[in-house]
Amino acid sequence: MNNELDFNFEDELHEECGVFGMYDFDGGDVASTIYYGLLALQHRGQESCGIAVSDTGSSRAKVSAHKGMGLCNEVFTPEILEGLRGDIGVGHVRYSTAGSSTRENAQPLVLNYLKGTLAMAHNGNLVNAPDLRRELEYNGAIFQTTIDSEVIAYHIARERVKAATVEAAVANAMKKLKGAYSLVIMSPRKIIGARDPYGFKPLCIGKRDNAYILVSESCALDTLGAEFVRDVRPGEVVTITKEGISSDTSLCPTDKSKEARCIFEYIYFARPDSVFDGVSVYHSRMCAGRALAMDSPVEADLVVGVPESGNAAALGYSLQSGIPYGTAFVKNSYVGRTFIKPKQSNRESSVRIKLNVLKEAVMGKRVIMIDDSIVRGTTSALIVNMLRESGAKEVHVRISSPPFLHPCYFGTDIPNEDQLMAHNRTIEEIRDLLGADSLSYLKIERLNEMAEGLPICTACFSGDYPIEPPKEDIRGEYME
Amino acid sequence: MNNELDFNFEDELHEECGVFGMYDFDGGDVASTIYYGLLALQHRGQESCGIAVSDTGSSRAKVSAHKGMGLCNEVFTPEILEGLRGDIGVGHVRYSTAGSSTRENAQPLVLNYLKGTLAMAHNGNLVNAPDLRRELEYNGAIFQTTIDSEVIAYHIARERVKAATVEAAVANAMKKLKGAYSLVIMSPRKIIGARDPYGFKPLCIGKRDNAYILVSESCALDTLGAEFVRDVRPGEVVTITKEGISSDTSLCPTDKSKEARCIFEYIYFARPDSVFDGVSVYHSRMCAGRALAMDSPVEADLVVGVPESGNAAALGYSLQSGIPYGTAFVKNSYVGRTFIKPKQSNRESSVRIKLNVLKEAVMGKRVIMIDDSIVRGTTSALIVNMLRESGAKEVHVRISSPPFLHPCYFGTDIPNEDQLMAHNRTIEEIRDLLGADSLSYLKIERLNEMAEGLPICTACFSGDYPIEPPKEDIRGEYME
Amino acid sequence: MNNELDFNFEDELHEECGVFGMYDFDGGDVASTIYYGLLALQHRGQESCGIAVSDTGSSRAKVSAHKGMGLCNEVFTPEILEGLRGDIGVGHVRYSTAGSSTRENAQPLVLNYLKGTLAMAHNGNLVNAPDLRRELEYNGAIFQTTIDSEVIAYHIARERVKAATVEAAVANAMKKLKGAYSLVIMSPRKIIGARDPYGFKPLCIGKRDNAYILVSESCALDTLGAEFVRDVRPGEVVTITKEGISSDTSLCPTDKSKEARCIFEYIYFARPDSVFDGVSVYHSRMCAGRALAMDSPVEADLVVGVPESGNAAALGYSLQSGIPYGTAFVKNSYVGRTFIKPKQSNRESSVRIKLNVLKEAVMGKRVIMIDDSIVRGTTSALIVNMLRESGAKEVHVRISSPPFLHPCYFGTDIPNEDQLMAHNRTIEEIRDLLGADSLSYLKIERLNEMAEGLPICTACFSGDYPIEPPKEDIRGEYME
Amino acid sequence: MNNELDFNFEDELHEECGVFGMYDFDGGDVASTIYYGLLALQHRGQESCGIAVSDTGSSRAKVSAHKGMGLCNEVFTPEILEGLRGDIGVGHVRYSTAGSSTRENAQPLVLNYLKGTLAMAHNGNLVNAPDLRRELEYNGAIFQTTIDSEVIAYHIARERVKAATVEAAVANAMKKLKGAYSLVIMSPRKIIGARDPYGFKPLCIGKRDNAYILVSESCALDTLGAEFVRDVRPGEVVTITKEGISSDTSLCPTDKSKEARCIFEYIYFARPDSVFDGVSVYHSRMCAGRALAMDSPVEADLVVGVPESGNAAALGYSLQSGIPYGTAFVKNSYVGRTFIKPKQSNRESSVRIKLNVLKEAVMGKRVIMIDDSIVRGTTSALIVNMLRESGAKEVHVRISSPPFLHPCYFGTDIPNEDQLMAHNRTIEEIRDLLGADSLSYLKIERLNEMAEGLPICTACFSGDYPIEPPKEDIRGEYME
Repeated sequence: MNNELDFNFEDELHEECGVFGMYDFDGGDVASTIYYGLLALQHRGQESCGIAVSDTGSSRAKVSAHKGMGLCNEVFTPEILEGLRGDIGVGHVRYSTAGSSTRENAQPLVLNYLKGTLAMAHNGNLVNAPDLRRELEYNGAIFQTTIDSEVIAYHIARERVKAATVEAAVANAMKKLKGAYSLVIMSPRKIIGARDPYGFKPLCIGKRDNAYILVSESCALDTLGAEFVRDVRPGEVVTITKEGISSDTSLCPTDKSKEARCIFEYIYFARPDSVFDGVSVYHSRMCAGRALAMDSPVEADLVVGVPESGNAAALGYSLQSGIPYGTAFVKNSYVGRTFIKPKQSNRESSVRIKLNVLKEAVMGKRVIMIDDSIVRGTTSALIVNMLRESGAKEVHVRISSPPFLHPCYFGTDIPNEDQLMAHNRTIEEIRDLLGADSLSYLKIERLNEMAEGLPICTACFSGDYPIEPPKEDIRGEYME
Repeated sequence: MNNELDFNFEDELHEECGVFGMYDFDGGDVASTIYYGLLALQHRGQESCGIAVSDTGSSRAKVSAHKGMGLCNEVFTPEILEGLRGDIGVGHVRYSTAGSSTRENAQPLVLNYLKGTLAMAHNGNLVNAPDLRRELEYNGAIFQTTIDSEVIAYHIARERVKAATVEAAVANAMKKLKGAYSLVIMSPRKIIGARDPYGFKPLCIGKRDNAYILVSESCALDTLGAEFVRDVRPGEVVTITKEGISSDTSLCPTDKSKEARCIFEYIYFARPDSVFDGVSVYHSRMCAGRALAMDSPVEADLVVGVPESGNAAALGYSLQSGIPYGTAFVKNSYVGRTFIKPKQSNRESSVRIKLNVLKEAVMGKRVIMIDDSIVRGTTSALIVNMLRESGAKEVHVRISSPPFLHPCYFGTDIPNEDQLMAHNRTIEEIRDLLGADSLSYLKIERLNEMAEGLPICTACFSGDYPIEPPKEDIRGEYME
Repeated sequence: MNNELDFNFEDELHEECGVFGMYDFDGGDVASTIYYGLLALQHRGQESCGIAVSDTGSSRAKVSAHKGMGLCNEVFTPEILEGLRGDIGVGHVRYSTAGSSTRENAQPLVLNYLKGTLAMAHNGNLVNAPDLRRELEYNGAIFQTTIDSEVIAYHIARERVKAATVEAAVANAMKKLKGAYSLVIMSPRKIIGARDPYGFKPLCIGKRDNAYILVSESCALDTLGAEFVRDVRPGEVVTITKEGISSDTSLCPTDKSKEARCIFEYIYFARPDSVFDGVSVYHSRMCAGRALAMDSPVEADLVVGVPESGNAAALGYSLQSGIPYGTAFVKNSYVGRTFIKPKQSNRESSVRIKLNVLKEAVMGKRVIMIDDSIVRGTTSALIVNMLRESGAKEVHVRISSPPFLHPCYFGTDIPNEDQLMAHNRTIEEIRDLLGADSLSYLKIERLNEMAEGLPICTACFSGDYPIEPPKEDIRGEYME
Repeated sequence: MNNELDFNFEDELHEECGVFGMYDFDGGDVASTIYYGLLALQHRGQESCGIAVSDTGSSRAKVSAHKGMGLCNEVFTPEILEGLRGDIGVGHVRYSTAGSSTRENAQPLVLNYLKGTLAMAHNGNLVNAPDLRRELEYNGAIFQTTIDSEVIAYHIARERVKAATVEAAVANAMKKLKGAYSLVIMSPRKIIGARDPYGFKPLCIGKRDNAYILVSESCALDTLGAEFVRDVRPGEVVTITKEGISSDTSLCPTDKSKEARCIFEYIYFARPDSVFDGVSVYHSRMCAGRALAMDSPVEADLVVGVPESGNAAALGYSLQSGIPYGTAFVKNSYVGRTFIKPKQSNRESSVRIKLNVLKEAVMGKRVIMIDDSIVRGTTSALIVNMLRESGAKEVHVRISSPPFLHPCYFGTDIPNEDQLMAHNRTIEEIRDLLGADSLSYLKIERLNEMAEGLPICTACFSGDYPIEPPKEDIRGEYME
């Protein structure tokens, strides 16, 4: 195996969050539905989760909340859900880098302000958070978390002093926020959803009977037996009250080309059964696979995907090329975030524990292996090696996204540039490090096809940032 | 047993908090010493506890904190203490009424503000907290807890924008705070202690080798093998830096009679081995017992205390009267806050589970039973009954404090007036409800003797409040 | 949806156990390797797990053990593994029916007997356990668990009084045991593996450097980077000592046709990357899929598997029929055993929470849906319905095993006959209940092909039991 | 402080167990009453506890049990108690030496045998357990715990094969058991209590309405509001069935002088509010204090007890001598078994954390300090030192039991002889080590007065064992 690679780092990208909001006009308890909704969003964040609910019917709406470190299944029990009574609520799942993975930073953020209580769930990253924070501190603000959401909350609270409604306060606050944010906010008798004017992160509206839902991904609506109504528009503020749903589109860009959806949602983060802004995630991955087959064909006996995210592109490649699709890997679904990682002194390796090759399937075959992306490349190198050990005659690697070259400031956890395998290396050098017979990436031009023409952010591939990146590094732990 | 009493309520008073701060100039880790200090303060709060530490030696002082619901033994493990590295730190134990007993309200409060991080531990209650809170909200503040400490923190943060030092900011903030507060504050390289100008709640300074300590009760200093240096003066702000200890007494009342120490600390809350402002708690209880013997003598065979707080007064009564002191009760020390309370359908009662009578000791005797106070009176009635069942010929009840008549707004959890046994009842009516042969309370004039002339707050007995009480009820859970 | 079905029951079969043993001649600690081995066997049992180790080097070999309810990730921590020191050890994962799912029944069973300590891990069920138990009780035996393993242990202990070695005692005890048992036993300085003469349950030998491994499935060897040596023969007793490996084959049937491997291991229980007695599980599932395509063809646009176990057969069907393979379902891998099941009053259903349909993939298509088996049929009916709701034009169900008709007494948890969908129903009636356009099962004759001629037990399909079934119901909880 | 002492060991004796049994003829659930009963016995064992119940009304009596490591408050929750339904049950609290403090050894022991299920709670130690164990093993027995109770259970099971009733089996088994055992046994429809013929450990009968209770100490009956009926006689087997209570006294010694109650129950283990065999524990301690005052008088100003067990003797000394009784120590009741012990590098000491001196009370005084016994003596030396530091002019130590010289084989955890302070030392040498002004022990002749003439075991003081001690050391962990 290649010694140039450092196998000590985790080799996975992480989305930062999933958000959920619900208002049941029939007065039913929403907590357990939010729980099932968060389960469907769990892939977006596995470090902490939380639910806050309120009862619009009571004279003095009081927020009940529970949050904690861990998966939904670890944080919530039937008794806890039972104790969260209310017909209105928000939920959140969260990932963060290790340093600031604390209970304090778990969401929803629940706070009291001039007009009562507010609970907020946020997905995304602000690029001007440090500036905003400093400005607030010069006005005597105190911060009890290190999350951007607290900065957003302050701005809403300040605007609320002047504004007629909380939704107006949200819209006013948004004018100062730069970056990615999909928000779901619960005020005592309203649920508000907002998406930044670039539309970096997804947010959509669903409906079940007399209940409205706001949620990061449409797959959660299927899970709940709810129907998809529509996506929240970039820049839109949606307000759900007893009177129904209303919308403020004053911040929506008139020039649609200013929008900049995160293409990585389609490539990797989102569940394939989700549809964002009219584009099916599954379809876009199939499409990337087909494009790879057209642009980078190779003779082979078998097309396989690296589970789970490589499978759809592999199907696309197979259908386009006519080379049979197959399964080469068995993933151990019991190896979660909390499994005890092998120490370096152990003979076992994390990759082998998570993934095994079906020798039967690859023995003696020329294999095309499709993966969604290469970050550090260590996992890919190990997997190529495992395929060879299992008797694969050739291993051709096809990546259903372009080479990964630049940091992201909008909510994706990407390591330093020099840890990125594609940084300062030619394709040939990467192929050599992976030990593959051939290697091709998706052409950057193909991304538009994947997104069916939606305006997208491709900064991590192109370095072309829709918002000027911050001067200081805002990623990871926030420290004063 | 008397049916006029409602036995469904807890019949105990609760102190709200204990605070601790430490700065070790020799650079040792303070977390485990703070842990042992909090253990010695545990009687002041058993609902939640926490420790925050910082390392003054590191270039970028970072706060490590851990807090949780439960006793020190439940919240802290050796691993957690090991992870809290720093030569400077604050700790807190807390009690609260049920409603707001949440993880969010646990202290120390840790926050970021203009000048870095701040950790604060607070004992007491502000009477103008709702006003201050509202004023802050009109300026766009957000609140994530329901504790007064957050209001105090905001004022310090706001003053800090203008003030040259954090201790100056504390002093300026104190000018706006009305009520009871003993504070211990950690800024990255300082420990600050402050006591309100009335001196409601205790706070003292200790020293061990090259480490300074600030703590609610002197008994914790004995536990740690530290020496008592002096009490913090009412209104004083004490600052401990690498340079040593300094003091700002500008807010100390020049007219000492304006001071108003909480007499209930001496009567019940504090440990008998503590000394506040020069007066030994043990001595003041003995003194109350002697006074009772002088003012309310009765012929009897045995003087017993209701454990633990009645024992010292019983000794005083015995020494003064010459009637032998004895032990009549065995307390089960394994029945903690978390024991499963008997349901009404159970045959068992909470009082019997906690306390048993030594039949051997009281059989056939005329017993004088000394208790520190009567709140709802339900426990007292049950205990008198148990003494009779065990063969006591007569039971004479003596209470080492005056009748309890008025609510407290300064940090003691006292039920509504109409739940107080002494409210609207004559001594004779109370005696009858208790089923005692005679009953006497300490005369209110005797309180000054107990406190050896220190100016005290006697509002709960006299209704004479040193600060005008708030118009709205600020006790219990704070809700917007 | 069809109302004839009762949707209140779980609709899944469960394997009862996985076993693991290891002896490291180089003296390394085996506990963490056993942990990773159990992770690879976790699909065989998710209710409890345990590890027992011993140090052959110490003068007085002492067993350290840890077991608990839950998954490996929940039961073990790095500290616990660290505390299990030894170069020899056994491990176990377990499933059981609800009633006897107690900590007491967790394995390995650790006991003291005449010759010191013994730890035993067992996979399978004895049919004569009640008889053996009663006989032992008539001799004064006491039982502290309700697992068959305790009966086996007694027999070994009794034989050990007379036998020269523990392996001889095991062989002698086996003469009295009727039923299915794959055993891994640790005596202070030996690891012993034994498989019943029918070979119902798998057991194989692996090697890594100077360490021998005994394990239920070969996939665990891949995970550990160990090589597969060979399967333990039906009836064989394998002994691993410092001197190496030895074997007693005196109980191996000379007539191989008497062997009776559980065909359900190939159909459903085992991981596809395991190979038992020379037959690849993946290959046998592909083979069943091909057979279905040959025996029960239908015109369609897409072949899909119900994840995970239906996927390999679906690939086989696709390859044989030429109809494209596709993915129709997204499984939520965060919905584990401990997720909060929806109450009947909830609008959500367990199936939808676990599985969602990729509308994009099935819309407007004629779909062939391959599943490994139908137990109660409720899940299948719901999934067919979900496919239709998602726009599938036709749904043709193909089951890669014959109709399920008879109970199993050898270690598989099968409900009462009348809860089995195929019981007393024609294929047409079942098809109607499922709401499918067509339905076919694998022909029973095809099972031999799946197993490549190995002698198999087909009792659950054919009612043809290799050992006479017990008169009383031995399944589920054992009660006196 | 004296350097000859090793302060690294715990300096406390431990009782091994408390037992409880209950049969409610009115069919009420007994679990919560057992829980409160165990709370009252918690001082007898704090390492593990458990409850097993059964429902005599159901056709097939099934045992429900729950046990775990820790205090009753930690092991039981309202939900767990709720789940333990039955009108008959047994409970247990346990202490053990560190090595064998495992979940496996927690009691009650629940087992199946010839005649159904049996649950057993045991207090005491057998001296012939190793012999009996070996004999059983030669008959093929297996042991899953290291507690004597399993040996007893085997003998009952073996006798049951021949005996007509379970109580007859118990009586027959008792003929083989040598040592100390107070047993409470639940068979599906009976509660059986048995006490060894020496009566080492206490066991008494209580009654509440239509429920019978068997319990180690009478104080638990007071707690439950039950009346004391009588003690179980040494050697007696008491059986409670639906028909009422019956008794088998065939094993009771006709020569009462053969009885040998453990005198340490009176000196230290038992709660002072318990009465055993007609003798009040409180009274016997008072009596020891009076005897000390008569035999070892000294001029002084104050008599104090080391809490809690020294207090009653101190009262006795004070009453006899006329020297005033006082309180010198404040015990921190929040320092439980689980508090984090200070490391040697810490400045804090366990004794100071647990106990503080009331300076106010001892300053300038000549103090007589009464303790119940001296084991290693390290704690006593520290406490004498603390009294001096607090200003005591003289410290006279009086011990309310004779010097501790010999090991105990009957259920008390006593360290090796050479760790006993009194071993090979003169009284003067011990006084010097303690740093006391004078030291006296209770005369051994006075023990009979304490026990009011009851035949007692004084082996730990006199070396005069009522049963020949075992040749091998049976204390601590049992290992084969």
